[in-house]
Amino acid sequence: METDYRSGGGSGRLTIVGTGPGALDYLTPAARQAIEEATVVVGYRPYLEMIADILTNQRQLGSAMMQEVDRVAQALDSAGEGQTVALVSGGDPGIYAMAGLVYEMASKRETDVEIEVVAGLAALNSCAAQLGAPLMHDFCCISLSDLLTPWDLIEKRLDAAAGADFVIVIYNPRSKKRDWQLQRACDIVRAHRKEETPVGIVRAATRPQQTVLLTTLGSFEVGPVDMQTTVIIGNSRTYVWNGKMITPRGYDRKYRLD
Amino acid sequence: METDYRSGGGSGRLTIVGTGPGALDYLTPAARQAIEEATVVVGYRPYLEMIADILTNQRQLGSAMMQEVDRVAQALDSAGEGQTVALVSGGDPGIYAMAGLVYEMASKRETDVEIEVVAGLAALNSCAAQLGAPLMHDFCCISLSDLLTPWDLIEKRLDAAAGADFVIVIYNPRSKKRDWQLQRACDIVRAHRKEETPVGIVRAATRPQQTVLLTTLGSFEVGPVDMQTTVIIGNSRTYVWNGKMITPRGYDRKYRLD
Repeated sequence: METDYRSGGGSGRLTIVGTGPGALDYLTPAARQAIEEATVVVGYRPYLEMIADILTNQRQLGSAMMQEVDRVAQALDSAGEGQTVALVSGGDPGIYAMAGLVYEMASKRETDVEIEVVAGLAALNSCAAQLGAPLMHDFCCISLSDLLTPWDLIEKRLDAAAGADFVIVIYNPRSKKRDWQLQRACDIVRAHRKEETPVGIVRAATRPQQTVLLTTLGSFEVGPVDMQTTVIIGNSRTYVWNGKMITPRGYDRKYRLD
Repeated sequence: METDYRSGGGSGRLTIVGTGPGALDYLTPAARQAIEEATVVVGYRPYLEMIADILTNQRQLGSAMMQEVDRVAQALDSAGEGQTVALVSGGDPGIYAMAGLVYEMASKRETDVEIEVVAGLAALNSCAAQLGAPLMHDFCCISLSDLLTPWDLIEKRLDAAAGADFVIVIYNPRSKKRDWQLQRACDIVRAHRKEETPVGIVRAATRPQQTVLLTTLGSFEVGPVDMQTTVIIGNSRTYVWNGKMITPRGYDRKYRLD
């Protein structure tokens, strides 16, 4: 374990910083400043690589995937010893990401480290922008990962969301080990919604390798979907025009739009 | 109507730009660039004032509240005449905001103007960050505005979201004219969730006049809530520690966190 950077004494500060979808173009000045002011930057190694251009003298503590608990412990330890720590998180640390684990572990430790969250653009923001305007009406975000959530609760939420005509944003749709959940989720939604319902599939939004695909609930082939992908299923009024997915807000009920 | 700026001929470009919660600190470089490159900037007047520091020689077309249809028509007209137009929108134009109306009106006109969305931090991102970590698990966004949506559909969605234990983010909670909907929404959620459920109320997130309040479903007084406020109702596992609202992700089911 890293120990030599410890300054000892006095509580520092931990800022959980959202770096957005990837490119520095989408990093807010507030997030950039929190990283620049830090004495220690902690993060999943590929996220640290994405912000390499703004890392200067900060001590860097990179870690591998699935090491979230260790990463947060390092960040809290460093802050507890007086460091100014930035824990970086892709997307928005406040949406299915590191902010929660930090507060959960901080509450168990009853630490007096000052903790702050600097929001970033989440996958739901950046993927919606690439698709057009799918989130113009009430929507749900549902993660299909059953590593930390019982699958029956996920099914219950999918069914409720589909039944009440929410647009549905699916996080963590499919991985090598979790290969059947997305198809099952689509089957649940199809019980409530017609086959022609538009489905948007965005991978690596805003990055050079970005892909954007539009399909329908009836012809959606889940095979190519992976953990870098976000899936958005339209509501009963969502339509496609000129390659864009559009969920009407309802203006057409009150105004002439042409 | 403004006409003298029209350059005539050739299709321009319309970028719908999210300026985030307010301060330029939260404007992404991508959004800033889109505004700087524009020849015409269109927007609700207070949003244009927020970005006044980066407006230089762009022609500014500011308009009043509720003038969304006119504003989009101006933006599409200008782009149709060859201008490079930035239509600015507070928050994220992709979440209950201007992106939808632009695409809806563009589709009615069958325009060939190139349209792009640059995402910004939405109220749900910036308010969650101020509250702690309320959106660590599946959540719904529901607007209580029944100007464009039948109230019975809004009630149905509130009931479905509460019944399936989603965290609930409420947009457009209360205005002078719509003064009973928020209380009714809370009553619907209370039929499914206990009185102690944490409720976070954030007004004017990240701006100098920001207020953050934590209460519970049982003791929530809706009186001070207005249209600049976002309300987040926790799920059955959400708790409060040290003034922060925390929805567990589920790590405690698998890991020791202390």
